[in-house]
Amino acid sequence: MSYKLFTLNNIQAANFLMTPLELKDYLDFEVKRVYFISNPTGDTGNHAHRAEEDELFVQIQGSSTICVDDGSGMQEILLSGPKNAIYVPHMVWHGFKDLSSDCIILALTSTNYDPTRADYVEDYLEFKQLCKN
Amino acid sequence: MSYKLFTLNNIQAANFLMTPLELKDYLDFEVKRVYFISNPTGDTGNHAHRAEEDELFVQIQGSSTICVDDGSGMQEILLSGPKNAIYVPHMVWHGFKDLSSDCIILALTSTNYDPTRADYVEDYLEFKQLCKN
Repeated sequence: MSYKLFTLNNIQAANFLMTPLELKDYLDFEVKRVYFISNPTGDTGNHAHRAEEDELFVQIQGSSTICVDDGSGMQEILLSGPKNAIYVPHMVWHGFKDLSSDCIILALTSTNYDPTRADYVEDYLEFKQLCKN
Repeated sequence: MSYKLFTLNNIQAANFLMTPLELKDYLDFEVKRVYFISNPTGDTGNHAHRAEEDELFVQIQGSSTICVDDGSGMQEILLSGPKNAIYVPHMVWHGFKDLSSDCIILALTSTNYDPTRADYVEDYLEFKQLCKN
């Protein structure tokens, strides 16, 4: 399966901007873990998940460029908040660069964190080899 | 059931601050909908949910004061991001005031949005009467 980019619905309420996501429209898994990253000073790490972890990334504020490879080659996609989200299933290489200073990215994930990181592929050449198999 | 305040774990990674929530530690429901509010210019509405909707509010950035009443009286709780979250089950009156200009609040909820708003109690006196029954 490949990644999928979404444009979010932004609703201007009387006193705030509201961005709702009915998860059945975005996900095919139950959310087990949520995390968000803020206060960036550089790129994030790059990796793929072997079999377990699927993720939806939501650009909450600011902007970033996600680098993704579903096996067919690396693509760079600009994410702008609060307008964009991207679904990244397992066996899609991904990482974020060019995070704006106010960048906040929310992730909704299909697994609880496993400190052994057995589901992670952190070597790009190994990932490309796995794609061929 | 009453509300429950949480202090979140903030992990300083090499290039960003990461705030993870393993949902089993915070929630007893499957998340059906996520929304976030940003760019505040005033207070949010106040209401309770009759029976369906339970919510976890996460202060992502900035600060706000949540006003909550579980039937035993109104309390005001300062939420500071990215350090605080609060679980608000159904039949707890709630609303946010004093939102800082950079305030972002994330909500994880147990229901998809119902435009009939049949689950909402938006009159405080009606809520207090329901609590007595």
